[in-house]
Amino acid sequence: MSGGISRRGALSRAVLLGGAAGLTAGAGGTALALYRKPPAETPAPVTVEPFHGPHQAGVATPPQAHALLLALDLREGVDRDALARMMRLLSDDAARLTQARPALADTEPELATAARLTVTFGFGPGLYRAARLDAPVAPLPAFAIDRLEARWSGGDLLLQLCADDALLLAHAQRMLVKDARAFATVRWTQRGFRRAPGTSGTQRNVLGQLDGTGNPVPGAPGFDTALWRPDGGTTLVVRRIRAELDAWDAVDRPVKEMAVGRRLDTGAPLTGTNEFDTPDFDKRDGLGLPVIHPDSHVRLATIGDPARKILRRPYNYDDGPRPDGSPDTGLIFASYQADVERQFTPIQKALAERDLLNKWITPIGSAVFAVPPGCEPGGWIGRGLLGQ
Amino acid sequence: MSGGISRRGALSRAVLLGGAAGLTAGAGGTALALYRKPPAETPAPVTVEPFHGPHQAGVATPPQAHALLLALDLREGVDRDALARMMRLLSDDAARLTQARPALADTEPELATAARLTVTFGFGPGLYRAARLDAPVAPLPAFAIDRLEARWSGGDLLLQLCADDALLLAHAQRMLVKDARAFATVRWTQRGFRRAPGTSGTQRNVLGQLDGTGNPVPGAPGFDTALWRPDGGTTLVVRRIRAELDAWDAVDRPVKEMAVGRRLDTGAPLTGTNEFDTPDFDKRDGLGLPVIHPDSHVRLATIGDPARKILRRPYNYDDGPRPDGSPDTGLIFASYQADVERQFTPIQKALAERDLLNKWITPIGSAVFAVPPGCEPGGWIGRGLLGQ
Repeated sequence: MSGGISRRGALSRAVLLGGAAGLTAGAGGTALALYRKPPAETPAPVTVEPFHGPHQAGVATPPQAHALLLALDLREGVDRDALARMMRLLSDDAARLTQARPALADTEPELATAARLTVTFGFGPGLYRAARLDAPVAPLPAFAIDRLEARWSGGDLLLQLCADDALLLAHAQRMLVKDARAFATVRWTQRGFRRAPGTSGTQRNVLGQLDGTGNPVPGAPGFDTALWRPDGGTTLVVRRIRAELDAWDAVDRPVKEMAVGRRLDTGAPLTGTNEFDTPDFDKRDGLGLPVIHPDSHVRLATIGDPARKILRRPYNYDDGPRPDGSPDTGLIFASYQADVERQFTPIQKALAERDLLNKWITPIGSAVFAVPPGCEPGGWIGRGLLGQ
Repeated sequence: MSGGISRRGALSRAVLLGGAAGLTAGAGGTALALYRKPPAETPAPVTVEPFHGPHQAGVATPPQAHALLLALDLREGVDRDALARMMRLLSDDAARLTQARPALADTEPELATAARLTVTFGFGPGLYRAARLDAPVAPLPAFAIDRLEARWSGGDLLLQLCADDALLLAHAQRMLVKDARAFATVRWTQRGFRRAPGTSGTQRNVLGQLDGTGNPVPGAPGFDTALWRPDGGTTLVVRRIRAELDAWDAVDRPVKEMAVGRRLDTGAPLTGTNEFDTPDFDKRDGLGLPVIHPDSHVRLATIGDPARKILRRPYNYDDGPRPDGSPDTGLIFASYQADVERQFTPIQKALAERDLLNKWITPIGSAVFAVPPGCEPGGWIGRGLLGQ
């Protein structure tokens, strides 16, 4: 707080000045600012996330409170040269904005504040077609549970913007989209949220479930192999998963916990007492039945081999209520993994076929992107692919 | 943080256990949770806002980071008795949820956390018609600058939900709407944001402008008269104001600052050097012209008489970008005042006729609500009006 005027002090001063100010205000209508307050915008203690490095930020970065995922479609005629120009521009914007500096053509430089902003770029299959290059990613195969809507699916270029401050996020979106407009149109926008900044530990989704307990932790064995490709890149799967909350709320807790395989309150596996207890999938109850149902979500989603795990980085969404009061809410599932086909698809296939939770969740959007490696100062994202 | 396992400690343990874990994972596919993390959801330091009292919370309460404004329309046949039943239910939900306790029929009680949630109820003209009572509020007169859309205007009942945590906000919305569904449908929903929780001082809007410098401060002379009616209630005006950001970004800073009457960086009036300097509307430049333009926003919006001020409690919105990349963003203007016609309407009339800023802002929604007084434990909001 600069200026050293506390709110309490300012208030006392306002009260003391009340009589005189009232006189002045009465004497002609040219009004005065009667009350003093602390100087503008003393920010909460926040920080910046590095932009440059071997990997893009926003992947292994601890999730921020807010996310904005923008999928763009390239305009007709945008070729490899144009893509290179676009990615130079957008990388420069991202390098500045993430470090709390205004973009080069920033029209609201005061909005470029520090709140852990990350900008992560993903390249969809269409971008490779436009550049006349082989695509390392393809749309996912169809799953029986999918009810995909075009308005939430696909996209040539993904911008994943995350920050702990919603105004900064809006500003970064504005600056990046302004520079991208000559090259691309907006296919879809998904806004997501997690708990308030500073909330640590596993977070809950809108079903009330602790979501992410089994997520791999940076630095642990196998983590790097599971996440990064040899060039420093990775891949991203985005699935919009609607929660059928009216139906979910109509069943009782034991049914929900059987579907999840964990307790809803503590997140403990049904064979344990604490969230991080190891689920015992072999344990049987008095009737000889498995305590954790073989089709429960935790059973099907648990991957033993650290090198085959996926890094989930999901956000909740809530676009509801609808006019009749019914919910329109769910999860923007986002997972990063070195190889979609080897890591993500087998898990999703098993879940799609058997997961008890499917009764209450419906995938309505799906998109896959290659995430190029990071860049050093002076470089730009995608240079290895699109540069000369 | 319960359990006392730090993230750093957990990580070291995971690394140490790596070899053994790898063996186990290889030996049969019944996988283990390999990595330990801190227990779930250690919340950031937050608090609750009182629900009970002479006034409703969410009015003089320092604004939270997130807001959700829901306007409901009463179903056919909902009369005074039904309204009383609905308000009993909703008041009970609000009394619990704001104190971080689950609602009575809460299906996700773990989502009832503490993050300064407030629930504020407003009664629109239609609610009084349904109750066969005289309405103390009416829609605003038409202003020439308005381009009102029905989808952002009107409403019989307003729920203003504010919190510092977006997941709590989504949960509170869900619980309240569930109980309101039998009585009402959803007319519109507006989602707004301010800076991250803990950011103090005047905040910026999406135009980059410090917004709220002249806002009255609780406890200052005239504040109570300006805000509260004798019964402890107040009134609320909600205006959705679109920012014409493409046009705004096309003009240079001196033009913007002339329109606002303040510097964009510091928020100081053009006759001063600091945000809270008193604007000198009589000061002239070398050519004899007023330094602060008589049609500037600050000149027209400044009210000298403390008892006629309005308490602005606005939130930014960003529903963009549109498919062509153009912005869809602006301000959910919300002001509280004892008397709409005496306080709000004259200011808005002057602004609508002359404000230089009108070139870059367009009101697209408008609604007016009476805000009943607060209630004591055991009571409910609206009892004085709807009770027997």
